[in-house]
Amino acid sequence: MQWGHKDLLDVTQLSRAEVGHIFETAASFMEISTRAVKKVPTLRGKNVVLFFAEPSTRTRTSFDIAAKRLSADSFSLAGKTSSLAKGESLKDTALTLQAMNPDAIVIRHEQSGAAAFLAERLDCSIVNAGDGGHAHPTQALLDGFTLSGQWKDMAGKHLLILGDVAHSRVARSNVLLLSALGVKVRLCAPRTLLPPLVNEWPATVYSDLNKAVSNVDAVMCLRLQLERQQAGLLPDLREYARTFGLNEKHLDKAAPGVKVLHPGPINRGIEISSRLADAGSSLILDQVASGVAVRMALLFLFLTRKD
Amino acid sequence: MQWGHKDLLDVTQLSRAEVGHIFETAASFMEISTRAVKKVPTLRGKNVVLFFAEPSTRTRTSFDIAAKRLSADSFSLAGKTSSLAKGESLKDTALTLQAMNPDAIVIRHEQSGAAAFLAERLDCSIVNAGDGGHAHPTQALLDGFTLSGQWKDMAGKHLLILGDVAHSRVARSNVLLLSALGVKVRLCAPRTLLPPLVNEWPATVYSDLNKAVSNVDAVMCLRLQLERQQAGLLPDLREYARTFGLNEKHLDKAAPGVKVLHPGPINRGIEISSRLADAGSSLILDQVASGVAVRMALLFLFLTRKD
Amino acid sequence: MQWGHKDLLDVTQLSRAEVGHIFETAASFMEISTRAVKKVPTLRGKNVVLFFAEPSTRTRTSFDIAAKRLSADSFSLAGKTSSLAKGESLKDTALTLQAMNPDAIVIRHEQSGAAAFLAERLDCSIVNAGDGGHAHPTQALLDGFTLSGQWKDMAGKHLLILGDVAHSRVARSNVLLLSALGVKVRLCAPRTLLPPLVNEWPATVYSDLNKAVSNVDAVMCLRLQLERQQAGLLPDLREYARTFGLNEKHLDKAAPGVKVLHPGPINRGIEISSRLADAGSSLILDQVASGVAVRMALLFLFLTRKD
Repeated sequence: MQWGHKDLLDVTQLSRAEVGHIFETAASFMEISTRAVKKVPTLRGKNVVLFFAEPSTRTRTSFDIAAKRLSADSFSLAGKTSSLAKGESLKDTALTLQAMNPDAIVIRHEQSGAAAFLAERLDCSIVNAGDGGHAHPTQALLDGFTLSGQWKDMAGKHLLILGDVAHSRVARSNVLLLSALGVKVRLCAPRTLLPPLVNEWPATVYSDLNKAVSNVDAVMCLRLQLERQQAGLLPDLREYARTFGLNEKHLDKAAPGVKVLHPGPINRGIEISSRLADAGSSLILDQVASGVAVRMALLFLFLTRKD
Repeated sequence: MQWGHKDLLDVTQLSRAEVGHIFETAASFMEISTRAVKKVPTLRGKNVVLFFAEPSTRTRTSFDIAAKRLSADSFSLAGKTSSLAKGESLKDTALTLQAMNPDAIVIRHEQSGAAAFLAERLDCSIVNAGDGGHAHPTQALLDGFTLSGQWKDMAGKHLLILGDVAHSRVARSNVLLLSALGVKVRLCAPRTLLPPLVNEWPATVYSDLNKAVSNVDAVMCLRLQLERQQAGLLPDLREYARTFGLNEKHLDKAAPGVKVLHPGPINRGIEISSRLADAGSSLILDQVASGVAVRMALLFLFLTRKD
Repeated sequence: MQWGHKDLLDVTQLSRAEVGHIFETAASFMEISTRAVKKVPTLRGKNVVLFFAEPSTRTRTSFDIAAKRLSADSFSLAGKTSSLAKGESLKDTALTLQAMNPDAIVIRHEQSGAAAFLAERLDCSIVNAGDGGHAHPTQALLDGFTLSGQWKDMAGKHLLILGDVAHSRVARSNVLLLSALGVKVRLCAPRTLLPPLVNEWPATVYSDLNKAVSNVDAVMCLRLQLERQQAGLLPDLREYARTFGLNEKHLDKAAPGVKVLHPGPINRGIEISSRLADAGSSLILDQVASGVAVRMALLFLFLTRKD
């Protein structure tokens, strides 16, 4: 497949065939990470700027490892120590970075639309690593890739996304990607943590976790930002954990072989029980390993495309 | 040319022939940054420490990219997370770094003379990436290199440096470098933002921007540190912008083909109008691209010199 | 020697033969750091995560340089910008890192036992770069290696460790390593800065520096954390410096050719006089250079071991 995109802004831009091609490419890269010499010369002499205006460990490190395993050079910029802190606009920072001729800028930013804003104005590839509450396409792709390794056929499988859907770019990108791949998506959250237009999402909404979990093939827990309580969206964390925290009993009602996902970092005992996070049904660490492979695939496809 | 210097402290140490050699070397490196494989093995196995006690995005990243495009390994230290924060003296930090056998230490520091202080005491190359209000030689060299790409002959060209000259190491190094190359330098600033001994500088001082800009071939705007207002040096930012901010009307009085420079980060609408920053006459992004090439040239010359 | 250890937690796990093997390997690597091309392909394609939950310049940079001189890729995570800051447990952060398939995680952490905690739970190599007040094995190994370069035979040599022994992981690891190598270790500190069970340590305790220094072959000064005074452990810094700060006069009572060590960063004029820190008897910068070589040796041994 000839790769046609300059930028990765959200999963909605990808055709089903393109998602399949990303997954195949990622599958072929999985093996590199388990070699004694975890490095191939594929992207030698390519430059990737990791511009994280919001703090991040796992996503930034995952991209950094992905870049270096393909022999690309990576350059990390953090928002707090960057010129953004001196009052420079995002556009000027990005134009400045582009003038140094990188092949791609991977950006995480607290503003929805930040990646699209840059993609319109810059010639180099922009990879959205999370923009506000909008989208987190590489997370959705790694989640989809992880599930595709479990399920021979994704069509007709039932996935429950559980927790703070309203503020989660992970939820939004996953609903869009997985429903497009034929997965039947359910959402479950307290009403205050559901987005206003949730009825227009390609998903079924539940308020009762016990009903929501019935016969599902996988549950994706979302991280609860603990500051939601201060914002008045949650009466009490303990009550939230009792009502919407996933534990092993819930899985009795699920389909046999049900899997559990979480994008991390986990609040053990809040959105997921500690035991469940470590159980055999948990794919949480598989997601992390998949993340490196999917990001290798994305860097490969975007940095070797022909205009 | 056999490169004779151990350190780059300021532009005053460089002969005209040496500046020319830096520009020629930079010109030959410009092309590497536009290749598909932006990497040559020239400095493989060389180590460059990037020691930035003051925060910086563009200068640090520019050096980092320059180092890696030449295959050198770079190591970033920030002042706030370094031993300096534990009360260690600059000298001891530098001696410690040197004991790890780097080939060069690139240093930015809030104290004027910090780079010279280290150069006297250390055996490895010291590259001054900005020391207090004193000097910023790599910025002046990249500005000179950018202008040399525009002008067949620099001698007799008129350059206006506009803004906070008093606190600008960029201004000081540029005046010294460009006047030595034959450029006629003008300065324009409110009296409170002119250095005390400005009459001894090889430059003509103007207080009226409309007169200063008359027939100039280029205007270099300086960044205004917004804290100058709190320090009582500026009555009012809006008034400053009206009187000393450069806009397109000013350029009507300049020579045909006048160019505009700014070291960044830009305060749009203060020292330069937003429209002008993006205009065809603006060399601001050329400066950034030149910066990588000039720093590649400098790392190459200093790290391959023979004692 | 076939290297049998997965992790480096403290010096106590190492046999005398293994310490000798580390020193020999380090000695063979010393030369690489003085070459024009300071890089060998030995660990190409290996990944080392530098996870420093406590700030550090010299140790982190030393490991970073060691990794890159052996052509390994390194990935730096700081505690403050990492998921730990989002409330993730150390275990989950580490499991996440491991899922990205690094070959080793070098960890510094404020909790004693943090490295051992991870070593039990993770499959990749854990290298302890300082855990609370417990251990700092790579520092002790570089100190031992530095001394082994000075002394043909370590057995029977007298070493004085001077200063805040109670809170020093450097002191603890050095006492254990060097006494096992046959060095006669003395400790000297105010009573408030001695650990409670110091009588069980393989060392002789002195309260009078003038007596402690008599006939010693080396003095290792420890860094004084200046916050000890606020904690009520020191009546007065100036008095401490007068009573327990090492200066040149003390060395008159020592053995001929006495050497002075300090792990850095130095508080000049407090635990050591400024003149002495720079004197010919000082090995402080040799320790830094040895540190790179010892860490190259350790990365080599741990990353090329066969399970």
